[in-house]
Amino acid sequence: MWAGMSGFSFSLTATDGAARCGVIATPRGTIATPAFMPVGTAATVKAMMPESVAETGADILLANTYHLMLRPGAERIARLGGLHRFMNWQRPILTDSGGFQVMSLAGLRKLSEEGVAFKSHIDGARHMLTPERSMEIQALLGSDIVMAFDECPALPSDRARIARSMRLSMRWAARSKAAFGDRPGHALFGIQQGGLERDLREESAEALRAIGFDGYAIGGLAVGEGQALMLECLDYAPRMLPKDKPRYLMGVGKPGDIVGAVKRGIDMMDCVLPTRSGRTGQAWTRRGQINIKNARHADDPRPLDENCTCPACRNYSRAYLHHVFRAREIISAMLLSWHNLQYYQDLMAGMRAAIALGEFAAFEKSFHAQRAEGDIEPL
Amino acid sequence: MWAGMSGFSFSLTATDGAARCGVIATPRGTIATPAFMPVGTAATVKAMMPESVAETGADILLANTYHLMLRPGAERIARLGGLHRFMNWQRPILTDSGGFQVMSLAGLRKLSEEGVAFKSHIDGARHMLTPERSMEIQALLGSDIVMAFDECPALPSDRARIARSMRLSMRWAARSKAAFGDRPGHALFGIQQGGLERDLREESAEALRAIGFDGYAIGGLAVGEGQALMLECLDYAPRMLPKDKPRYLMGVGKPGDIVGAVKRGIDMMDCVLPTRSGRTGQAWTRRGQINIKNARHADDPRPLDENCTCPACRNYSRAYLHHVFRAREIISAMLLSWHNLQYYQDLMAGMRAAIALGEFAAFEKSFHAQRAEGDIEPL
Repeated sequence: MWAGMSGFSFSLTATDGAARCGVIATPRGTIATPAFMPVGTAATVKAMMPESVAETGADILLANTYHLMLRPGAERIARLGGLHRFMNWQRPILTDSGGFQVMSLAGLRKLSEEGVAFKSHIDGARHMLTPERSMEIQALLGSDIVMAFDECPALPSDRARIARSMRLSMRWAARSKAAFGDRPGHALFGIQQGGLERDLREESAEALRAIGFDGYAIGGLAVGEGQALMLECLDYAPRMLPKDKPRYLMGVGKPGDIVGAVKRGIDMMDCVLPTRSGRTGQAWTRRGQINIKNARHADDPRPLDENCTCPACRNYSRAYLHHVFRAREIISAMLLSWHNLQYYQDLMAGMRAAIALGEFAAFEKSFHAQRAEGDIEPL
Repeated sequence: MWAGMSGFSFSLTATDGAARCGVIATPRGTIATPAFMPVGTAATVKAMMPESVAETGADILLANTYHLMLRPGAERIARLGGLHRFMNWQRPILTDSGGFQVMSLAGLRKLSEEGVAFKSHIDGARHMLTPERSMEIQALLGSDIVMAFDECPALPSDRARIARSMRLSMRWAARSKAAFGDRPGHALFGIQQGGLERDLREESAEALRAIGFDGYAIGGLAVGEGQALMLECLDYAPRMLPKDKPRYLMGVGKPGDIVGAVKRGIDMMDCVLPTRSGRTGQAWTRRGQINIKNARHADDPRPLDENCTCPACRNYSRAYLHHVFRAREIISAMLLSWHNLQYYQDLMAGMRAAIALGEFAAFEKSFHAQRAEGDIEPL
């Protein structure tokens, strides 16, 4: 797996059933897997200083090509020294290809073999994304892990549409690989599509393996199908992908989704949930989800989670967190986002340790048992 | 000036003309004067972690009795261990008396000799503030420096109204002193009123001196009269107050106001301006005010102020600050508030050093000369 001083490499350090524990090495630092990537959509992990994101234990974050190409613009970020410098994050960054968000956010989309023409949701300006332009933008940003440009239909969708879309994405994957070229120290990941159709997932995996990527993502899940169907797909989809490369499940998810995905052999994930929840007063703890707005917290001197090391739990009562949320103070988003990111990173660290010890099954059991207890009793 | 291990004391360490440099000692730490107090209205300095407020060099912050009595409630904060613990700020806290904000924010006010009855601007609930209740609330909060309860008319206001209001405030000051009682380690400040009427200011100062306080505030300025009239009043008002006690100018102000006030013998100030400006994209630097929203910053790789040590200036370009402001990202408020608070604290530190060296006049000249230069040229 050795890939040279300035290379990109992945090595597995332990497995436990289908679950895997490993290390991705990049010139900007190593990433312990399974890894959760906080989302820094518009060159900021919302309500967080980047130093604080690093303090939670995040080795890598995700940024969105679609958002950054529209504002402030990829060429501008390149002139300013690249995304790492722009947003003051020196560890690895993975960028998505823009494909997913063009489909979910942009106006007046027109899909063709060439790519997607669309209007910006910010100012209505016309843009075009193609595999080649997506590779160019991600290079301008200076992304460490680049995603192939793909198209992803929402679920449920009919089989013919899913097949057509997947085959288009595979042709775009080949164009992405050609456009990416040879960039030592930077990785290109292909994205498996095929919805919930096992044979289409297999066809997609074959196409990607034939092209050859530095890592493989599972796309087209967490788009409305529900946890049960997603996990069912993850029972077979990961093992269609090369064992010796990182497997990244895009856009997932809730803590329960994450544990289920890691159990099935996923190495990387990303989701806006910890930060988005933090801004709406939702906190995730070992004992489930807490709505800090609830009146039961108004006089509660206890921390959100007495075992958590984040500032929200070390330095503040539930009563304070309740107060600042009700008063719409910015520190509410700051503290709850930090807590939730800490919870997610602690969850990943717990799973990595369990896999290394061959105790993932016990970890999973305890994870569900603690959540089943529910939040601590009101005082 | 020695006031015992657990006492409150003030000592002057240098003077330069009317300008003074000193130290306030409290059981929770010392305060270098002239001091600027960031405002933590609702138990948070908006968009700032308290550790970051301390990092800027703030020795003390101000919290608002009116806001805290309404939400989350003073008795609740007392049950939770007091305001310092509640908001995770272990250094000194000054609380205002609630009088000013009842007048500016509350609905359906009814003023009487007893106090002010009003309706909460949050939920319409009926409340009453009196000197006795204000002292009780500030004690429940655990404030280190307590302000006497006063009434403050907006300017311009006719002389008869100002005189009537000032005399009521002086009767309330005596009741505040009686209600405050003996609280070692906690200080009570009286508030001079009298608008821009010199003889009323003198009458007010005499009344306060007769009662006797640990410090003296100048109230009723920065309420619409403009800088010239305010500084004219400060040419005489501070020296009506005891020389050996801290003099606090309430609610001031812009950097130019602050320099003018310190020149005239003011030791303490507070203002929401650095944090409020930060949230609206305004940054204060040695060379004046910057509107980060302005298109000239979109491609500018330079920091706001190359001599500033705050994270916004150390780690980010103007282009980034422009981008996150335009994208309405929370980090925009976080970084600009931090920068502005750092600027204010650096300004105070600069004045303290200049006074100690007997070079305040040169400092003031340089302060105005730098501002006259205006912002650095666009690239």
